[in-house]
Amino acid sequence: MTLTVDFGPNDIVKQIDKTGIKGQHLIFIDDYSSTELENIFKTAEMLEPFWRNRIPLLEGKILCTQFFQPSTRTRFSHETAMFRLGGNVITESNPLVSSAAAKGESLYDSLRVTSQYADVIVLRHPDEGVIDTIEQLGSDASPIISGGYGNVTHPTQGLLDMYTAYRALGGDFKEMTVMIATPDLSRARSGQSFGLGLARMGSKLIYSGTTGLGVPPLIRAKLKAMNANFTEVNDLTIG
Amino acid sequence: MTLTVDFGPNDIVKQIDKTGIKGQHLIFIDDYSSTELENIFKTAEMLEPFWRNRIPLLEGKILCTQFFQPSTRTRFSHETAMFRLGGNVITESNPLVSSAAAKGESLYDSLRVTSQYADVIVLRHPDEGVIDTIEQLGSDASPIISGGYGNVTHPTQGLLDMYTAYRALGGDFKEMTVMIATPDLSRARSGQSFGLGLARMGSKLIYSGTTGLGVPPLIRAKLKAMNANFTEVNDLTIG
Amino acid sequence: MTLTVDFGPNDIVKQIDKTGIKGQHLIFIDDYSSTELENIFKTAEMLEPFWRNRIPLLEGKILCTQFFQPSTRTRFSHETAMFRLGGNVITESNPLVSSAAAKGESLYDSLRVTSQYADVIVLRHPDEGVIDTIEQLGSDASPIISGGYGNVTHPTQGLLDMYTAYRALGGDFKEMTVMIATPDLSRARSGQSFGLGLARMGSKLIYSGTTGLGVPPLIRAKLKAMNANFTEVNDLTIG
Repeated sequence: MTLTVDFGPNDIVKQIDKTGIKGQHLIFIDDYSSTELENIFKTAEMLEPFWRNRIPLLEGKILCTQFFQPSTRTRFSHETAMFRLGGNVITESNPLVSSAAAKGESLYDSLRVTSQYADVIVLRHPDEGVIDTIEQLGSDASPIISGGYGNVTHPTQGLLDMYTAYRALGGDFKEMTVMIATPDLSRARSGQSFGLGLARMGSKLIYSGTTGLGVPPLIRAKLKAMNANFTEVNDLTIG
Repeated sequence: MTLTVDFGPNDIVKQIDKTGIKGQHLIFIDDYSSTELENIFKTAEMLEPFWRNRIPLLEGKILCTQFFQPSTRTRFSHETAMFRLGGNVITESNPLVSSAAAKGESLYDSLRVTSQYADVIVLRHPDEGVIDTIEQLGSDASPIISGGYGNVTHPTQGLLDMYTAYRALGGDFKEMTVMIATPDLSRARSGQSFGLGLARMGSKLIYSGTTGLGVPPLIRAKLKAMNANFTEVNDLTIG
Repeated sequence: MTLTVDFGPNDIVKQIDKTGIKGQHLIFIDDYSSTELENIFKTAEMLEPFWRNRIPLLEGKILCTQFFQPSTRTRFSHETAMFRLGGNVITESNPLVSSAAAKGESLYDSLRVTSQYADVIVLRHPDEGVIDTIEQLGSDASPIISGGYGNVTHPTQGLLDMYTAYRALGGDFKEMTVMIATPDLSRARSGQSFGLGLARMGSKLIYSGTTGLGVPPLIRAKLKAMNANFTEVNDLTIG
């Protein structure tokens, strides 16, 4: 695939509209349909030539990064993206995970307040209970993008891995068989997001890990619901 | 009151000039006269339609937020305001409250240095002793806006509460009777700032709290100095 | 020397080109030749009138400040400079100095990743071992400016002191004799950087400190390699 720049910001805006993701929270990668994912990758491909350049698609907008679990790389990558799209950033990299902050109700309130400041929020939290909070918020908050929740989801990392596969292997996910291997599949949230994305696109999955530390039930249920072609091989003893 | 936008940035600049607050530190809400407060509310009203938009009144200016006491919401609100006015932000949300930093002299020096970087500073500090430091600094520092000092003052929060009252109740403060109720009036710095502002505008105040945890002497002296109409009811026993 | 502004951004860009420093890491102040230092000071002089103004030499560029040792002033000064030059900033002021982060390999990896985000990095680290890491990175990282490494180098502080001398004393470093006095010369990294810069420009140096806490061997070797005119007086007993 050759990258050309025979298009302008308006074409990118049109392409973004095709993704249909505007204004929505991003919790799980399978919140997107295969068509939406395809359009996200096409958008990424159009943005790639502007890698080090500012392209003012989000001029005057504000991103809030709130990381209840530290991650310099994930935080920096979202902030850099916002700057390259022309926006600005407010950031909290060390929120006190106090009893108040840990309670669902308080986080609910905090995200409502932050939504008055920011046009979009990237939230990382060690507790997957935040998913309930975000679902309760619905449209009472600015779009909240997960930068990792508990052990179950890290969709932006999953999208990066999907895009790498798309660019490196020609984009036909249906032809791909992918092994997701790690000693502890029960806590591999990036791997789970990659897996859900691949399954959504029709790839074949093989999970390889350690007995007793397998794919979380929630993820397994999601894979079954989308009729995914996946096997789990958790005892790799060679006999 | 209807919000219209039949005015431009220049009209807002003219309105800001009427407040007479340019270049001054903000420590107590009664640092402003009733006319200045009135003009601040009118300015806020003009800025409201630009809520989510960038209006370049502070293009190229730098705000420094220094929070010796953490407060994500207060910090974010000032930073968001700066971005929406076209400026940039440097921030320290976790300064070490070391013995050096706690000493007046060091903070004095630190604020002088920061003033070489930033056009305006928002400072939060758990110790009301910072008020002396700021008064000593005078024009040797960029304007320093209090984001909360000790137990006695939190004027930006007070201004928000004032503006809410102004917008919700039609703006005639002289007609308002307001009860400021909290178990511990001795540490209710936001409430004190709201109270001082209301008193300045001629409202009638009733303080309601707990015996022994009343309005701090400093605030009471200020209220008396401006001949405020206020009563304090600290024992709410119904008998 | 009179400051005039009979030049524009293009003249400044041309002057910056003369420094020959573009794209290079800055570890020690004597990484620069005397001609390069001279051109840096001339550049600073041209930028001085724009002190409080935005001059868009780095529009759309991103600075990353990574401080493994806290320093609000040094961090703020670099961030302010970036904003005044039209760029943006991502910042980590409290990286966990965990065993992983402390290992050279991990920092190596981290700086490579950060280089994908930022056009320039300012790094502060308590361990002078980072110097090896940066040398290994070479062109695999964005230019990394030292904001202080271990006990041996703090070149941006040294450049400030050099520039102060240049502006205050007319700029003829060959005519200057400078005493660098501090109880502990073994840990005076700012002083060492000032000294290396002065030596590079042909000044005469006198070090004055405490016996046993003298100039580090690495710095002494550098001074000798450039045939510097320096003496060390570490026992100041007057007898």
